[in-house]
Amino acid sequence: MRLVVPVSGSDPKTRLASVLSPDERRDFAEAMLADVVDAVTAAGHEPEVISTAPLDCAVPVTVDDRRLDPLVNDLLASTVTNGDEALAVVMADLPLVTPKSIERLLAPDADVVLAPGLGGGTNAFVCRHPEFRVDYHGASIRDHRENAQDLGASVAEVDSRRLATDIDEPGDLAEVLLHSDGAAADWLEQSGFELTAADGRVDVQRCR
Amino acid sequence: MRLVVPVSGSDPKTRLASVLSPDERRDFAEAMLADVVDAVTAAGHEPEVISTAPLDCAVPVTVDDRRLDPLVNDLLASTVTNGDEALAVVMADLPLVTPKSIERLLAPDADVVLAPGLGGGTNAFVCRHPEFRVDYHGASIRDHRENAQDLGASVAEVDSRRLATDIDEPGDLAEVLLHSDGAAADWLEQSGFELTAADGRVDVQRCR
Repeated sequence: MRLVVPVSGSDPKTRLASVLSPDERRDFAEAMLADVVDAVTAAGHEPEVISTAPLDCAVPVTVDDRRLDPLVNDLLASTVTNGDEALAVVMADLPLVTPKSIERLLAPDADVVLAPGLGGGTNAFVCRHPEFRVDYHGASIRDHRENAQDLGASVAEVDSRRLATDIDEPGDLAEVLLHSDGAAADWLEQSGFELTAADGRVDVQRCR
Repeated sequence: MRLVVPVSGSDPKTRLASVLSPDERRDFAEAMLADVVDAVTAAGHEPEVISTAPLDCAVPVTVDDRRLDPLVNDLLASTVTNGDEALAVVMADLPLVTPKSIERLLAPDADVVLAPGLGGGTNAFVCRHPEFRVDYHGASIRDHRENAQDLGASVAEVDSRRLATDIDEPGDLAEVLLHSDGAAADWLEQSGFELTAADGRVDVQRCR
């Protein structure tokens, strides 16, 4: 099993620009990546981090400035050639992942295992079918389901909130403080973010 | 195992008022309840539906107009008295739940099993400890964790996106169309809701 963590290192997390400066977005992206790398490593796997630009990480980082689709599709074409080798791809903005949620992703023996993200994304997958390819644009989870079925591939979905919670928008930050004590949660706390309870869902505010 | 589904039947889903009329909110709430009742029944359990006002449901509905906290805490006090009988409470606005996600909720042998909702809520729980009580205000998942730990109760959390996805706000509706083919998804489709892909997460628009 080859496990890749692609990350956007050049101008990361632009949808957090209303609450974080460019330098802070980079620091926070690195903290989230550290959480993912830690979970994968603790689950007994060696993550390969591939970033569009250099960034700090506890494991070696390969720099590759291609967009996500061509990068991942090239990895699929070069790795999953005859069914012997599987490729897992786990996004870098999943600070809630634990070793157990990584194990749950890797457990099913299907040709394609999909972990949906909130809002129609595909936050992680495992592929054992030589012809499966990705397209992360739009409602990618729906397209990936259909692509796999069109190939006659067996498909499994992992029902995990931790794998589903990618941190893209200010409204997502509360999930980190609620459900993690990793590097990203530490970074948010040290940067002054606190939970605020309202009538509906909990949000965050920045106190300094 | 006693399994209760509490539902607000009087003026349901007020946070959907910008996209649904009062009658539509009631119909949609009934469709979501049908999905939850179907999943629980298919998992081999008999759901007890308790609503603040009469509504249509395939199983008998008990009307009890108390607020959620006193209702559930009274159920806990009367049901979980000596550790022999467990109480499960599953919210009625979880149209993504499947029999399997219900089984996962009921599987752990802990005193308190919690299924977090998005935004700090507690979408479902199982209790086998006679002193555990609920408080759904604010970041309830954090309070429920702490309450259980203060009692010395063993605590398990279920990592399920399907149990985590409560449908409260217009932005949640896309999850129903993306991940369910049950009554709530049918109702949305028949009411003209369609997925719309943007740069970030998928949303819905109403076409008629």
